[in-house]
Amino acid sequence: MDIRARKIYEALFALEDLREIFRHALPTGLNDNEEEQFLDGVARVETIIKELKEGKGSPLKYVEDTIELRTREEEYININAIQPGGRLTPEARKALITYGDGYSICDKCLEGRLDKIRKPPVDEFHAELAEFVGMDEARVVPGARRGFQAVASSLLERGDVVIVSDLAHYTEFLAVENVGGVIKEVPSGEKHIITGDAVAEKIELVKKELGRLPKLIIIEHFDYQFGNEHDVHGVGKVAKAYDIPFLYNGAYSVGMVPVNGKKIGADFVVGSGHKGMAAVAPSGVLATTDEWAPKVFRGSEIVGDVSDRTFKHKEPEMLGCTLMGGTLLSMMASFPRVKERVKRWEEEVEKSNYFIREFLRIEGNKILSEYPRKHTLSKVDTRNSFDKIAKTHKRRGFFLSDELKRRGIVGEFAGSTRVWELNTYGLNWDRIKYLSEVFIEIAGKYEMPVG
Amino acid sequence: MDIRARKIYEALFALEDLREIFRHALPTGLNDNEEEQFLDGVARVETIIKELKEGKGSPLKYVEDTIELRTREEEYININAIQPGGRLTPEARKALITYGDGYSICDKCLEGRLDKIRKPPVDEFHAELAEFVGMDEARVVPGARRGFQAVASSLLERGDVVIVSDLAHYTEFLAVENVGGVIKEVPSGEKHIITGDAVAEKIELVKKELGRLPKLIIIEHFDYQFGNEHDVHGVGKVAKAYDIPFLYNGAYSVGMVPVNGKKIGADFVVGSGHKGMAAVAPSGVLATTDEWAPKVFRGSEIVGDVSDRTFKHKEPEMLGCTLMGGTLLSMMASFPRVKERVKRWEEEVEKSNYFIREFLRIEGNKILSEYPRKHTLSKVDTRNSFDKIAKTHKRRGFFLSDELKRRGIVGEFAGSTRVWELNTYGLNWDRIKYLSEVFIEIAGKYEMPVG
Repeated sequence: MDIRARKIYEALFALEDLREIFRHALPTGLNDNEEEQFLDGVARVETIIKELKEGKGSPLKYVEDTIELRTREEEYININAIQPGGRLTPEARKALITYGDGYSICDKCLEGRLDKIRKPPVDEFHAELAEFVGMDEARVVPGARRGFQAVASSLLERGDVVIVSDLAHYTEFLAVENVGGVIKEVPSGEKHIITGDAVAEKIELVKKELGRLPKLIIIEHFDYQFGNEHDVHGVGKVAKAYDIPFLYNGAYSVGMVPVNGKKIGADFVVGSGHKGMAAVAPSGVLATTDEWAPKVFRGSEIVGDVSDRTFKHKEPEMLGCTLMGGTLLSMMASFPRVKERVKRWEEEVEKSNYFIREFLRIEGNKILSEYPRKHTLSKVDTRNSFDKIAKTHKRRGFFLSDELKRRGIVGEFAGSTRVWELNTYGLNWDRIKYLSEVFIEIAGKYEMPVG
Repeated sequence: MDIRARKIYEALFALEDLREIFRHALPTGLNDNEEEQFLDGVARVETIIKELKEGKGSPLKYVEDTIELRTREEEYININAIQPGGRLTPEARKALITYGDGYSICDKCLEGRLDKIRKPPVDEFHAELAEFVGMDEARVVPGARRGFQAVASSLLERGDVVIVSDLAHYTEFLAVENVGGVIKEVPSGEKHIITGDAVAEKIELVKKELGRLPKLIIIEHFDYQFGNEHDVHGVGKVAKAYDIPFLYNGAYSVGMVPVNGKKIGADFVVGSGHKGMAAVAPSGVLATTDEWAPKVFRGSEIVGDVSDRTFKHKEPEMLGCTLMGGTLLSMMASFPRVKERVKRWEEEVEKSNYFIREFLRIEGNKILSEYPRKHTLSKVDTRNSFDKIAKTHKRRGFFLSDELKRRGIVGEFAGSTRVWELNTYGLNWDRIKYLSEVFIEIAGKYEMPVG
């Protein structure tokens, strides 16, 4: 293992110790004791940089006592299903270094409204964010789930019906459950794809059964299980026809796939910062149209009976400010790159298909997602290939993880040799090809037929 | 200005660029091109370290195009009212460097439950967190406000009455507003202090007026306006007597002041990560008793009508997982120091009083908070001192900010020379004394009488 990645961490940490000296010093300068600490600290950094250059020294293992260093992005290729879109850009990591402190974003907050801060340009970012997803107004939220929650809480009364996919993420269910709503799932059928027609049929069924129309439709562009593309344009048309608001769940698209909410016919677009926008968790975006903004982003109307206080400029569904520090800054700092990367989505899909094609050369390997792939997240079935080896291997199901890890691949759940998910998002061609070869190589080692 | 703090940032950023090389390389090692990039990068780091050592070179100003470097903790003394408790510890900054990536905490999530992850030890942290605030069970939440929301959403029906202080934070109002609750404020009176008796009186008034008891009491230990200490023990007794659940709002105490929820008689303790626990925003804690945990942390009961899916192990009020990355890791990494620092709360109060005492030597300066101080957040009135100067100064109200900034003090809102708040939390004695002298010095400069 190359020691250098860990030496970089060590140097970063040593610099943070140096930085700490300034955080306790007087603005007039360091005192003698602090100067001494400073020189010792610099000497330590120099030693580490020397080791880094030479690739020598002992490897750092812990941030502190109980928290292990996390090096899976530097020392391995990470094929985890949910992590790649949230991998930070270098700009986000830098922004985080400087804006990590709690309420760091509030230095120049003049109106008590996060989305109106001009330095750093949070207001501008909000405007661009709305445009980026093809909507009129946007707010940042602590995760896509908090976007579902805000919409569910604004639009639904107890007993109201919400249409979701039978592949819907659990957070959609919970957001509806919290307000006493009723979930009705659209069947995705044998192909595991939601169509506009299937949504229309379900609406009709609800109408017939319960005598009322659903109050909200939530459908994901790509689901979390198969990474299949669902006909959100078709759903948009059906939603319009029935005049039911449509929340486009872009947790697996916003920040990776080009998204234009209005063209899709969405009333709400929800995206995830930590799943798709190279940001710190929990973060996300809720965008809507001029029609719905006054409802979901309405100002507070409550009044204190003694103090007479009102909070009209605070938005109850946002609970006022949402991401007041590093989370937001990481989103903002990654945003220029995120805007560029969505333009290269086709190439991401091409790489995904390249890998799956190679993967399917191993006899018995199956793809459960739609194929050719339209996304980088895929569900594979290795029951008739790697799992056969697992049955007699002394490490059982762990043999595949062992073999992968030995070759620098992590991210699948250890012990998974049956049905599992992986994601190739953001891997460059060299990594994609290497990853493909690794699977073929492991198959070869166990004398599994490769076509 | 000492250039060295900015040189530290520059070195940190250059190391992040180096780190990025490994994030795209093969696990087998860098290729020739990458090795070349690596050597160039190391050379850049070395140059910066040399400049750092010598205190030379040009100062870095931006993270990227539009995001300015934030150096107020390194180059200034920050007396902002809400920021000091959320200032990151060096351990938190290191944890953030390694766990910044989106879903970084999920590498070894085996049960689909954040609070059950064992590596890093999130489960242990949750247990310690509950103990730390003297309660039975705890969950991390995206800010104290999300704790209020979870409790309000669990306990209240439309029209239910909630007792808060007339100094209550707006987020308590919004959490209640969202579920259609009714706010009734307890008057804090001339002393701006909430007593148990005042709470009891208000409960009686509600009973008389509306014919029903309130469903929840939310009172802060220290309020955000005056930083006054409210009689939470007294409130706890009254709550017990009326059998009304009591939410102790510890946004200005948890992580700074020793807190024992059960001793106080609280049913819920809410704290803020970014306000009091040296963590990235948005973060916080919601803790409760074994009695209330099954209600607020209940499992999901919703069922998919087509898929038959259930999510019993997911908690609807948490919307499943809450802080899946850097936010949580920053809380965890700061926690050992946070546990220690609450033991030194008395000294923080002592420093606060030292500063206020000196501040009051300037004729006309007033303290609006209770005095002697019991907290580090204080509300001061400078209408009869600095604001008199402001009236004829060419920079008007900005003169004080200018004078402070020139001496390395920031954090008050620029232009505030009338009634404003400041916070001395976490400043060491050297900084406290320097800060005190600065105000006296400015008063002297403008020939204001100093006693």
